[in-house]
Formats: sequence, structure tokens, C-alpha cells
Amino acid sequence: MTTITASGLTCALPVTQTERVQLGHGSGGKMSASLIGDVFLRELGNPALNVMGDGAIVEAGATEFVVSTDSFVVSPLEFPGGDIGSLAVHGTLNDVAMMGARAVCLTAAFILEEGLPIATLERVVASMAAAARQAGVPIVAGDTKVVERGKADGLYVNTTGIGLRDARCRPGPADARAGDVVIVSGALGRHGMAIMAAREGLAFETTITSDSACLIPLVERIKTAGVRVHTLRDPTRGGAASALNEIAAASGVAIELDEDALPVPENVRAACEMLGLDPLYVANEGILLAIVPAEEVDTTLAALRSHPLGSGAVVIGRVTGKPAATVILRTGLGGTRIVDLLPGDQLPRIC
Amino acid sequence: MTTITASGLTCALPVTQTERVQLGHGSGGKMSASLIGDVFLRELGNPALNVMGDGAIVEAGATEFVVSTDSFVVSPLEFPGGDIGSLAVHGTLNDVAMMGARAVCLTAAFILEEGLPIATLERVVASMAAAARQAGVPIVAGDTKVVERGKADGLYVNTTGIGLRDARCRPGPADARAGDVVIVSGALGRHGMAIMAAREGLAFETTITSDSACLIPLVERIKTAGVRVHTLRDPTRGGAASALNEIAAASGVAIELDEDALPVPENVRAACEMLGLDPLYVANEGILLAIVPAEEVDTTLAALRSHPLGSGAVVIGRVTGKPAATVILRTGLGGTRIVDLLPGDQLPRIC
Repeated sequence: MTTITASGLTCALPVTQTERVQLGHGSGGKMSASLIGDVFLRELGNPALNVMGDGAIVEAGATEFVVSTDSFVVSPLEFPGGDIGSLAVHGTLNDVAMMGARAVCLTAAFILEEGLPIATLERVVASMAAAARQAGVPIVAGDTKVVERGKADGLYVNTTGIGLRDARCRPGPADARAGDVVIVSGALGRHGMAIMAAREGLAFETTITSDSACLIPLVERIKTAGVRVHTLRDPTRGGAASALNEIAAASGVAIELDEDALPVPENVRAACEMLGLDPLYVANEGILLAIVPAEEVDTTLAALRSHPLGSGAVVIGRVTGKPAATVILRTGLGGTRIVDLLPGDQLPRIC
Repeated sequence: MTTITASGLTCALPVTQTERVQLGHGSGGKMSASLIGDVFLRELGNPALNVMGDGAIVEAGATEFVVSTDSFVVSPLEFPGGDIGSLAVHGTLNDVAMMGARAVCLTAAFILEEGLPIATLERVVASMAAAARQAGVPIVAGDTKVVERGKADGLYVNTTGIGLRDARCRPGPADARAGDVVIVSGALGRHGMAIMAAREGLAFETTITSDSACLIPLVERIKTAGVRVHTLRDPTRGGAASALNEIAAASGVAIELDEDALPVPENVRAACEMLGLDPLYVANEGILLAIVPAEEVDTTLAALRSHPLGSGAVVIGRVTGKPAATVILRTGLGGTRIVDLLPGDQLPRIC
């Protein structure tokens, strides 16, 4: 689910300045925001869509459920730590979980390129099935289309997830408040750098593995601990920088990050330096950002750290009042710099 | 939603006899059945998925809802009578409607090829929005990905629909019974032949327009009339022949069609003859098959004909007991022939 706030849109270049779709339109940055605002929201806008959370909230009969959809085009199809199948399950389940909802089912729709080895498809589907089983969420409906050689890149898959809202836990991107604290559940930058290394055939001293994982257990522990969580977010495409910018814009707050507190693994840091990338903008697929009131920090950290996926949970910053819709990085030397949305793509086809 | 019954699977070639994905695997015929059975169901199978109806039935809390997903890869993107945007809305809403459910929302996820003219995208999204508005069903969540030139064919779109089950109307592919009557709501073969003509640049005496339409109004009229409908089905990919084969297999019945009763427009018939195609296998996107008890025929026809979309509704055949899982065509000369599932593709990328 693309998540761009109204404020995010105002700083975007109008899509009418470009005549054709560019890779940057899929980046999760300013160009994406422009495309979404100028083309999609203009035509399709409605109250549920306009919120642009990780999923939409829908009332039907006596039930309030959430729905989130994502198409996956990651290249290569298989990478250290996962593949397009497990990623498609984790990605959509995580979007549902970030709304505090309990996922009840997934759908999966495949676009296959003629000539794709059946063995590759079998591995991807088996991985998808294992991920869904582990999460305890069935894939209840599917679809398969085949296109000619040169009209896809092996395979693409869409997953859509449906969850039931939970009265105990209703975080939202617009609910961060001055005085809140920003927690991340684990290391930054692993997924994006694992994909880059696999795609470019880069070898580092240690293999970077994707963090792709289902975040349902972490959200369940937060709920069980009774944390009053204001905002949850999995910082995927565009990384933590883009996710926090969207939250800052939606909530009308500033978010300050402490550079020294950011948990960037050494191999990710080295790879980023070699490639000239900033780990704050690199995609993650198995960590969450939790924004909670200051008095809930200890409980939240304890809840996250009680599960292996959250063993590296740390405080990385805080929410302040002004300047609104801004993310600021406090460097180790005491300086500050603005962490803006990127215009286009740092890493295309990362998910 | 791909709809292949268990019986349909047994007659399919094992996918292991092919090493790579072929276009026929997306046909809706025997090769599709083989791929679905050997790869997808083997790994992903669960009670909801195994039913393989037009959508899945999911119970969540106090609510019973249906969900259906479809990716659309139609080529060309725009054709007489519609485009990939309106088709994606109609196709998924119709799958939900065929389960007797009331659609409450749709999601839309786009895969865009770098270089796609923004103007084309704008037309497609506007058409999608108009179709959703006309149906009264909002698009509540979306996603956009961009892939490099040569990795898609302009654009692909996935729509997933969620509906609430209706206690009054719960048709299913396994509910056809001997003695029932088969009704079609309108002309056969328009969508597929419109696509073929547009793709191949064929000019006939009159332009063939796709029948792409939202079938919700027809289902509502059937419900309002109080018809006890056993099976509803929109005969899309693979046409009426494939849809009826799947129903015959799921219900364990034979279905007899009267060739002289099949409503094939003259321009569709002429185009099919020229191209060596059988209109029974050509895709439709704006008609439904209704299988009802004999005593409900008059009420059903009156209900369908009360709406412009169903003005051409006619009886085309009947359900008999044996041979099970078989569709038989009674020709004008009194002969009969078996109408089998095709192995592979008559018309690729029709939806």
C-alpha cells in the first residue's frame, strides 16, 4: 500500500511535467507522491482511500475491517533471506498488522512470463505457502495470468490482505504527538542492501540477508503488553526516512532522530558507503517503527525484545512540535540536517 | 479468480510434463487446471481455496464475506467498448456478484512500464473511477509499482473485491441439479472478438464492441424477484464452454446446450468463422449464466429482461444427470457433440 499524505503531496513535482512514466514514479518518494496525487487520487479519491494509511478501513455490516494491497516486482526473484513469494506474504500481512488489525486471509494473483521455469515457480509458491502457514493466515483466493516472453520479468505477484480491526490497538499515521518517542524493532537497511548485492553480484565480507519477516508476533506482543501505541509503520520502500516523513506530515509534527542511535549493521553500512547510499532510505521488510508516549517506552521495548524479531529494539528519536512535517537528524557531532523525501528512486524494484 | 474444479483437474496434463510456463497455462483450460492443481493447490491448498469458486468465502467474527482477486493483462489496453481500467472493475465486481454477495469495496494495484504515456494512464484510471462510481463500490486502497521498459506491456492492474454474503442468495458452482434450466443473460462472444479485432487490426462490416459491464444490477433483480438460483457464473476466459464444464464437474451433472438457442450476434459469428474460433469458447465480460430450477425460469427471464443488460436473456439448455461432468451440444440437425475444456489457449491475454 502506497502511503503518501496530503502534505507529502504538496512538495511534489506535478506529474504533468513528465509525459511518460519513469522508474522514479515507483520509488515511494516525491515522484510517487506526485503520480498518486495527480492521477490516482484525483480520479479515485474517496474518504477511505484519501487517508492513505498502510491499508484502508472499511465498515461493512457490524464489522470494521482493514484491507491492504501490494504488487511485488522485486528483482531478482530469489535473494539471500527470502524470495518474491515470502516477501509478498510478509509485505501485505505487515501492512495489515501496522493498523493494529488481525489478518484473517490473503489473496494471491500471479502474472507469469512465458518461459519461466516451472521449478522456479514451484519454489516461489512453496515459499509463499510456508510464510502464510507460519503466520497462520490462509491464502483463500488466487488468479494466474500468463504473458508473452519479454512482457514481464519472470513473475509478478499481488497479495491483498484482509484483517479485523482490534478495539485495543488502532494506531494511525496521523496519531504521532509531540513528546512521543520513536522506537525501531531492529536493524536498518538489510532488505534493500541484500537485493542490491544479489542484483549487482556484489560480494561483501559477510553476506547481507534480507530481514523479510512477518511482524504479526511483534504487534501481538505490543498489544498484550497493553501499550498505548500511537503509530506503527513498517519502513519498506523508501526506508525509515520516507516512512517517518509521511508520519511527520500526516501528524503535523517534527521527528528528531539521533544518528548515533540508528542500528545499522556493519555490513550494511559498508555496502551503503561503497554504493553512495544512505541506510535511512534503504528498504526494510522485517522491522517496525513504533511511536509511543514517553511513559510507554520501557514497556514497548520489553515487549519487542521478548521476541527474537525484536531483540534489537532501540529508541532512535522523539517527536517534537515544530517545524511540522519535518524529519531532522541530530548527528554525532551535535549538528542537525533535514531528512527529506527523495525525489525519485535510490533502489528500483526492491519489493 | 481462476475457477477449476477437482474433477477438471483429473483430466489435465500434469504440469511436470512441461518445464517452462507456456501461454496456454493462462488459458483457463486444461493447462491452467494442471498448473493450478500441480503447483498452486498442492502448496497452498486449504478449504476456502480448494472450493475454487468465483471467490472465496471467509468467516471473520460475526461476518461472512467473500473475496475475489484478478490480475488484468489484456492487450490492447484500450478496445471498443472498454479498456483495462473498466474491465478490471467489472471483472472483479462480477466475480463477487456471482456468489450472490454485495460488493463493499475494491482495491487496485498497478504495475506500470517505464515509458507508458501519462495520458494513457490517466484515461485508464478515469475509466476505472467511472466504472467504480457507476457500480457504487469505492476503490479504498491502492498500490503502484514501476518496472523498466520491456518488463511489462504498458500496464497491468490487479483488483481485489470484498463483498458481504447475502442470506437470500448463495449460488455455487456445485449447486446445479438435474432438471435445472440454463439461462444466459445476453449475447455470446463479444468481448473476446472485440479484443481480437482490435489486436489484429481486423475490420468487419460492423465494429464488434466488448460487452464489458457490471452485472450487479442483474443479480439484484434476480434477488429482488426471489428466484431460488442454484448457480451464477460470468463466462469470461474460456467462454461459456469452459464455465459450464467447470459447473458440470463441480456439480457432478451433465449440461445439454441447444445450438440453435445460443445467442451469437451475426458479426461475432462471422468473425469467429473467419478466424476458425468457436464462440462458445470466446470470453465474455458482461453476461451471466444462471442455472435455476425449471419452475423459476419465467421469473428469472422476466427479472433479467427488466434491465437493459439482460434484455436478450434466453434459455440455452438444461441440466441432466448423466454423464457427469460433461457438456453436450445438441446441434440443429439433431446430432450431439461433446463440448470439452480446451487444452490451452484460443485467445491469450483477453482479460
